[in-house]
Amino acid sequence: MKPEMILLAHGSGGKLTHDLIRDLFQRYLSNVYLDDLGDAAVLPEQRGRLAFTTDSYVIQPIFFPGGDIGKLAVCGTVNDISMVGARPLYLTAGYILEEGLPFADLERIVASMAETARAAGVQVVAGDTKVVDRGSADKVFINTAGVGWIPDGVALSPRNVRPGDAILVSGTVGDHGIAILCQREGLEFSTSLASDCAPLNGLAQAILARGAVRVMRDPTRGGLATTLVELARSSGMGFEINEASIPIKDAVRGACELLGLDPLYVANEGKLIAIVAGADSEAVLAAMKAHPLGRDARIIGRVTEAHARRVVLKTVLGVSRVLEMLTGEQLPRIC
Amino acid sequence: MKPEMILLAHGSGGKLTHDLIRDLFQRYLSNVYLDDLGDAAVLPEQRGRLAFTTDSYVIQPIFFPGGDIGKLAVCGTVNDISMVGARPLYLTAGYILEEGLPFADLERIVASMAETARAAGVQVVAGDTKVVDRGSADKVFINTAGVGWIPDGVALSPRNVRPGDAILVSGTVGDHGIAILCQREGLEFSTSLASDCAPLNGLAQAILARGAVRVMRDPTRGGLATTLVELARSSGMGFEINEASIPIKDAVRGACELLGLDPLYVANEGKLIAIVAGADSEAVLAAMKAHPLGRDARIIGRVTEAHARRVVLKTVLGVSRVLEMLTGEQLPRIC
Repeated sequence: MKPEMILLAHGSGGKLTHDLIRDLFQRYLSNVYLDDLGDAAVLPEQRGRLAFTTDSYVIQPIFFPGGDIGKLAVCGTVNDISMVGARPLYLTAGYILEEGLPFADLERIVASMAETARAAGVQVVAGDTKVVDRGSADKVFINTAGVGWIPDGVALSPRNVRPGDAILVSGTVGDHGIAILCQREGLEFSTSLASDCAPLNGLAQAILARGAVRVMRDPTRGGLATTLVELARSSGMGFEINEASIPIKDAVRGACELLGLDPLYVANEGKLIAIVAGADSEAVLAAMKAHPLGRDARIIGRVTEAHARRVVLKTVLGVSRVLEMLTGEQLPRIC
Repeated sequence: MKPEMILLAHGSGGKLTHDLIRDLFQRYLSNVYLDDLGDAAVLPEQRGRLAFTTDSYVIQPIFFPGGDIGKLAVCGTVNDISMVGARPLYLTAGYILEEGLPFADLERIVASMAETARAAGVQVVAGDTKVVDRGSADKVFINTAGVGWIPDGVALSPRNVRPGDAILVSGTVGDHGIAILCQREGLEFSTSLASDCAPLNGLAQAILARGAVRVMRDPTRGGLATTLVELARSSGMGFEINEASIPIKDAVRGACELLGLDPLYVANEGKLIAIVAGADSEAVLAAMKAHPLGRDARIIGRVTEAHARRVVLKTVLGVSRVLEMLTGEQLPRIC
């Protein structure tokens, strides 16, 4: 018999915890490692360096156009692993649930995680559930950690970036953050506003095979601008970005204008930035465009020796301005 | 300049997030992998199967006798990895902070994580910080995930358990849960009540070297009894436990009597159960006792063919009763 809502006892480690594991988590996420139910999953030996990362997800609302907190929790961690050139294989999932969460909401989230994991080719191999008293959390928070292995010969790093390299973005920017904000505030600018939340491992592997990729990064919190500033600083190079080349959906641009937001600072959850040897930039761009998640890819700028550690934006009006990191909190609980 | 308290903007992914990483997390937890600040940590290739696990920590209060949420978050994950026979090496840390958390509290927690990680010989190689609005979380929740490698030849599993095996516990039970409950309720039964929170990797490695260990488990939420029931079920064997052999501190026993709790169901955070070939049980017991965290170790029972999948407790009064898993929620937010 399914419970109607989550109770404190679901986090006790006792019978109700076991019921929840068997009737919900194993039902949707079952695999040979998870089903072992040991203190830790035991995974086969793999060749290569290990990529290891984590993110917690506190997005509000938990269901939104284009996804939900479960899909986001799988994509976000798959993407972070993919950005260092690794093939993501295994995830863990840690749930913090607020007492009273409708069981049906949790089931919908776990089903979505399972579907996204399947699409990304990863398995959830270990998990944990804690329940806190009503008012001590907001519905559900999810942490995912992930591991993947980096094939020999792949070594991405901002330190590899050279003058003359091209800077590519795999598609339109700002979709995720604007979709969340409009949903949260009850604004309806357009039916085309949806999160871009997607697993990028397939796209990342496709472009790695096609040219000298120096470094990749997915521009989540802080948006394209903050990620570019981070990369410029850690590479020691200057970046020149052509504003007119940055793909932005009309609906996102319109919403940003009305809300007073800069789309370059709005979060994405299904886009990547790649810095690529100049000679390979067209081949990598073609590989991006050939992938369903890279159809709107563009070359948005290039790496220079001039203005080291800075990102200079050439605006559509022809003036140049230096981009800074996001200051303040543009949109809280966006992921 | 240190902030006085955590603001929403510390979770923005922008400048304040970067300041927090540099001025707090890197200051205490710095290592070559963490300092790389990529989307995922890139770790050297290792031999052996990979152990991978996660736990979220929502303990209340965040500071308690014997530890704090930071120490607990390192120990809990180190211990889960150690229980499958792996040597834990790397952790991730995901923080969910409530807006307004005093910076000094967070600093104390991170310093404690660093100290515990050093003691356990592990490194925090990746992290994440989210901030939620006041009232949407309770001060701080921490998720840790961890990886370790299992040496060739080590293969622990409940399926290895055989009749005649001995069941050992590494020390007194119930210390953690009772210490938390007394702190929370403002009860002072005794100054000797403190959490047993400790990293068990050293103890686990010491006993693995000394005999045929079939399986290990750390009896956290649900306590000794629930963990034994889990092991009996997954091994398919019967367990006979001698109540008089179970080490329990007088102060814990007294508190349990007054509070109406059964110490066998109270959480531990620095104890392990090991099931060991009968012939090796004295050698493994001696190895436990020789370790600072195993001084109070005891053989508490044995594995039988009789009453398969059940745990039978021979009480001090001479009667036998079948132990069940914890039902209901004995102590919420104990870890």
